[in-house]
Amino acid sequence: MPRYLMTIAYDGTLFHGWQIQPGQRSVQQVLETALQSFECDDPKVVASGRTDTGVHALGQKAHFDYNGNISPAQMIPAFRTRLPEDLEVVKVVQVPDSFHARYQACEREYHYLLAKHRTPFNRCYMGYIPGRALNVDDLNTLASVLVCSHDFSSFGRPNPNIPNRICDLREITITEQHDHYRFRIVADRFLHNMVRRIVGTLVTFNRKGLDPDTLKEILYQHDPRQTMVPTAPACGLYLVRVSYPDIGLD
Amino acid sequence: MPRYLMTIAYDGTLFHGWQIQPGQRSVQQVLETALQSFECDDPKVVASGRTDTGVHALGQKAHFDYNGNISPAQMIPAFRTRLPEDLEVVKVVQVPDSFHARYQACEREYHYLLAKHRTPFNRCYMGYIPGRALNVDDLNTLASVLVCSHDFSSFGRPNPNIPNRICDLREITITEQHDHYRFRIVADRFLHNMVRRIVGTLVTFNRKGLDPDTLKEILYQHDPRQTMVPTAPACGLYLVRVSYPDIGLD
Repeated sequence: MPRYLMTIAYDGTLFHGWQIQPGQRSVQQVLETALQSFECDDPKVVASGRTDTGVHALGQKAHFDYNGNISPAQMIPAFRTRLPEDLEVVKVVQVPDSFHARYQACEREYHYLLAKHRTPFNRCYMGYIPGRALNVDDLNTLASVLVCSHDFSSFGRPNPNIPNRICDLREITITEQHDHYRFRIVADRFLHNMVRRIVGTLVTFNRKGLDPDTLKEILYQHDPRQTMVPTAPACGLYLVRVSYPDIGLD
Repeated sequence: MPRYLMTIAYDGTLFHGWQIQPGQRSVQQVLETALQSFECDDPKVVASGRTDTGVHALGQKAHFDYNGNISPAQMIPAFRTRLPEDLEVVKVVQVPDSFHARYQACEREYHYLLAKHRTPFNRCYMGYIPGRALNVDDLNTLASVLVCSHDFSSFGRPNPNIPNRICDLREITITEQHDHYRFRIVADRFLHNMVRRIVGTLVTFNRKGLDPDTLKEILYQHDPRQTMVPTAPACGLYLVRVSYPDIGLD
């Protein structure tokens, strides 16, 4: 059956994460319900990776199989009439039948927006960690410790089903905007909660004036039971991009 | 009893407007509940004007009377612990006992954000009116017809309790941003729905290529039963500023 890859954007506020769970509104469930109305034989949607409750996506990718008459170009407006306003299918392309949105993804980019002040308008769209202003130069120096291929066990929620804890962290850049800080983090893959734990840790280190060597120690312990690794709130996290080896997708 | 004036910001999405209504969550009701916990004898809050369901505020003003021990400076953190995250008291100052937040307001500024495209993230924070791109120069030329003191009956919902329909519209400027248009509208006062009807009308005129003289005709008819005056969606509207004659408030 022909396989398609879609690019999805969603406001995660009212979703109980990506994955289908009984009695909860999830992105996967809402998408599969929409696909069913296309008279799709097997309306199963496989994402590049799960996102947690409250986490947003601008460029999530997911594949599905479909042998009906609607063309990829027609699917965009067809999805629009079937999906709620907080979930949008931005793009659909046909891919080889063997393509897999999770296994073949070779790079992910997340942004974390950390508010300087909590306001009624950023409460669902930026994280907020009370405390004094951050020093962006020091944050970038700290963050550079994490760049490269490492066992990130200290920054990931344990998962016995995923024994490989090595991620190639290719970039972390922190920039200051007028009302928030933006953490841009790129890696081949991420462990569960890894971006939020990295952000929480960098903020704690920056405020407490802890040095890069102490961060290195935590990294090299490869132990998820860290007391110095707080998890930043979900609502500041955005899955911005998922990339695949060049098969002419973009 | 000492009177205080507060500046309030709120995300209007989950409020059923400003005014208390049985069984509904309104800004006034939530504020008065918070005031009650200050052991306030008469926890009544009087706004500069009501806002409708879904309309946002960055600089709404309201007065209240209070004879307890909490100082204006202490009220900000006290409100913060008592108010939900979508409602914030930004500032509190003491005013003369005779001050009135509605009757003495001499100028209001609203902004209307009109999205170029509907996305999962702007659905509650910008209006969207499907159709082709707008010409901002033409919009500004059209809008200039409305500037000055006029009877705005054609753009206001009828209200027999408010016989005076004359508003001094001091500024309308439309600017284009990367993903939206911003309508900035300043007047001494506004009729109910007036900003949203002006925005809806300007957009319709712009898209249909109607000329400023036709807009003048509608304005001079002083008749609220216009077929050419659509109301733009509430969620794009922000009450940005309410000003008072100089009594040293800011």
